[in-house]
Amino acid sequence: MKIDGRPYRSIWLEPDGWSVGAIDQRRLPHDFVVARLLTCADAAEAISSMLVRGAPLIGATAAYGVALKMRADASDAALDAACRTLIATRPTAINLKWALDEMRTALRPLPPPARAAAAYSRAGDIAEEDIAINKAIGEQGVALIEAIAATKKPGERVNVLTHCNAGWLATVDWGTATAPIYLAHDRGHAVHVWVDETRPRNQGAALTAWELGHHGVPHTVIPDNTGGHLMQHGMVDLVIVGTDRVTARGDVCNKIGTYLKALAAWDNNVPFYVALPSPTIDFSVDDGIREIPIEQRGAEEIANITGRTAAGRIETVRIVPEGSPVANYAFDVTPARLVTGLITERGILRANRAALSAAFPERIAAAAE
Amino acid sequence: MKIDGRPYRSIWLEPDGWSVGAIDQRRLPHDFVVARLLTCADAAEAISSMLVRGAPLIGATAAYGVALKMRADASDAALDAACRTLIATRPTAINLKWALDEMRTALRPLPPPARAAAAYSRAGDIAEEDIAINKAIGEQGVALIEAIAATKKPGERVNVLTHCNAGWLATVDWGTATAPIYLAHDRGHAVHVWVDETRPRNQGAALTAWELGHHGVPHTVIPDNTGGHLMQHGMVDLVIVGTDRVTARGDVCNKIGTYLKALAAWDNNVPFYVALPSPTIDFSVDDGIREIPIEQRGAEEIANITGRTAAGRIETVRIVPEGSPVANYAFDVTPARLVTGLITERGILRANRAALSAAFPERIAAAAE
Repeated sequence: MKIDGRPYRSIWLEPDGWSVGAIDQRRLPHDFVVARLLTCADAAEAISSMLVRGAPLIGATAAYGVALKMRADASDAALDAACRTLIATRPTAINLKWALDEMRTALRPLPPPARAAAAYSRAGDIAEEDIAINKAIGEQGVALIEAIAATKKPGERVNVLTHCNAGWLATVDWGTATAPIYLAHDRGHAVHVWVDETRPRNQGAALTAWELGHHGVPHTVIPDNTGGHLMQHGMVDLVIVGTDRVTARGDVCNKIGTYLKALAAWDNNVPFYVALPSPTIDFSVDDGIREIPIEQRGAEEIANITGRTAAGRIETVRIVPEGSPVANYAFDVTPARLVTGLITERGILRANRAALSAAFPERIAAAAE
Repeated sequence: MKIDGRPYRSIWLEPDGWSVGAIDQRRLPHDFVVARLLTCADAAEAISSMLVRGAPLIGATAAYGVALKMRADASDAALDAACRTLIATRPTAINLKWALDEMRTALRPLPPPARAAAAYSRAGDIAEEDIAINKAIGEQGVALIEAIAATKKPGERVNVLTHCNAGWLATVDWGTATAPIYLAHDRGHAVHVWVDETRPRNQGAALTAWELGHHGVPHTVIPDNTGGHLMQHGMVDLVIVGTDRVTARGDVCNKIGTYLKALAAWDNNVPFYVALPSPTIDFSVDDGIREIPIEQRGAEEIANITGRTAAGRIETVRIVPEGSPVANYAFDVTPARLVTGLITERGILRANRAALSAAFPERIAAAAE
């Protein structure tokens, strides 16, 4: 997508042909800073420090991390060490493990002198595959926006509500929930996005608003409390969110608070869609509420908040009384009954076992093994 | 209620018998500072600057403001001027108008030399009446908590979720939503409160958590996104919130985000109660969603946030990208169908016209006039 008119990706190979550029997402939305990754250790540090975040982007960064290692030392020992270092950065990230398995499978059979070139090639492919899958999600989902646009009077906008950041910054390009939005906007449809700020980490306000704004998509940041009121008053045409995991029966695990928006959408007959690349479907899990353990994160994410002072300094301030405990559940599960549809690269599916199995029979077979 | 063991009210007559003390709520939760109001202008400034806030407390502060004026100048002109000054501080606050009408009605017929004493007396009564009504709400509502406590195993707590600050800091004492909680706690029941931080003004994190903590009530601050997840997992026994206005049919206007919690409570069979003094019922309004205009407040409440740095400075930081618009709807309306009951000083009522009319027949008669 674009930043002030110039096309960007969240990660890229630099013109030198070996070093890797990435947007430092820790500095957003206040500063746009590009980081240059020169070593596998740089890539690992970029992941663990959250310079890069978002499952697909983490996978691509890890793949480039292996390539950087192979350039310096293409031995078996170096390959193993690179994978060990990188997997340890975010051990629960499923795309990270997948990308490292891909790299090892591609490189291990090769003679060491051939590994560096093959590693850059496979890492580049992983990035391109992510872009292709997101673009396909966009092409499926844009039909939903275009259908609503067709019912609008001239000058009226299609209002989409989204939660958290399932945007291009979380992927290599396009994003998942945002792909239909960017495609509709680029095709000239009048789209406006209500951006949930998404407490406690504020990825909506800090990242989604930033990327929409710099691409030129009209949007408005709202507190997470606001969506229900907007839906009651006909100010939301559809909801599109991303997801971290979809179960075999279509339950959707996503950023905490997603479930509340799904309830409001249901109560007001607003379509509630979830955009996902199919690897996000976990056919080994059925009842998302009972079976998916919800990560609890640190108290400081709620008690403290970071922003920019009027003088331009980045400061962290405490907003909860000293001594008050906090609880920080990172995700919740939206039951399939509240989900209008799942926007995948193979089409828009009903959130149930039959639809998911029919669309991804090879995944069912793999899960049964 | 208590602050670290010492009984307090949010406003009081000082031992000198004429000046007025109040907690400076702008400084909470980071600093506990008591302000001393010496003139009617001080009282007006306390209201307009939000040194005091909460409808009942604003009413009591205005009443004391009139008393301070009568002490300095008890003429008709001074009485009129005081009322004009005070009503202008928060023109839409219904309790403010009510308190000033009460004061004027009580004082105008009196000879000026008798007015100061009568004004202090009536202001004191207004404060005591607020405490009595809240205590009565507490006595009605505590039965709900005690009934749940009776079903718990030894050592298990009753978990109450609340939104925003309908606590003793918003009233003269006890609060509305918090009155049943404080009473249950003071009677020795094990109560724990999930405190929604309540973006964008964070009254939950800044005020409710502070007052519960200093009274000694166990509590946990959570992002507004979290309540649905907690209810899905049986971690909330009941919800109690306050309200700014209840319609004749029982629709509840309260801080933005209340509706989302009511939906989650409904979806998980968690009782959802609203605590209110009966003057909050507006028998002239029926359909809350269609008829109640929702105030939109300033963008800076969302774009900026104030807290304390590690070095102890109070700083305001920007958390939304420059150039991103924000929308700040202050309230939403929860339809009566989602409300389990209304905790009033005359009992716990169903949220419907028949129940409200039967409990407050004199209000129906007044509304019909």
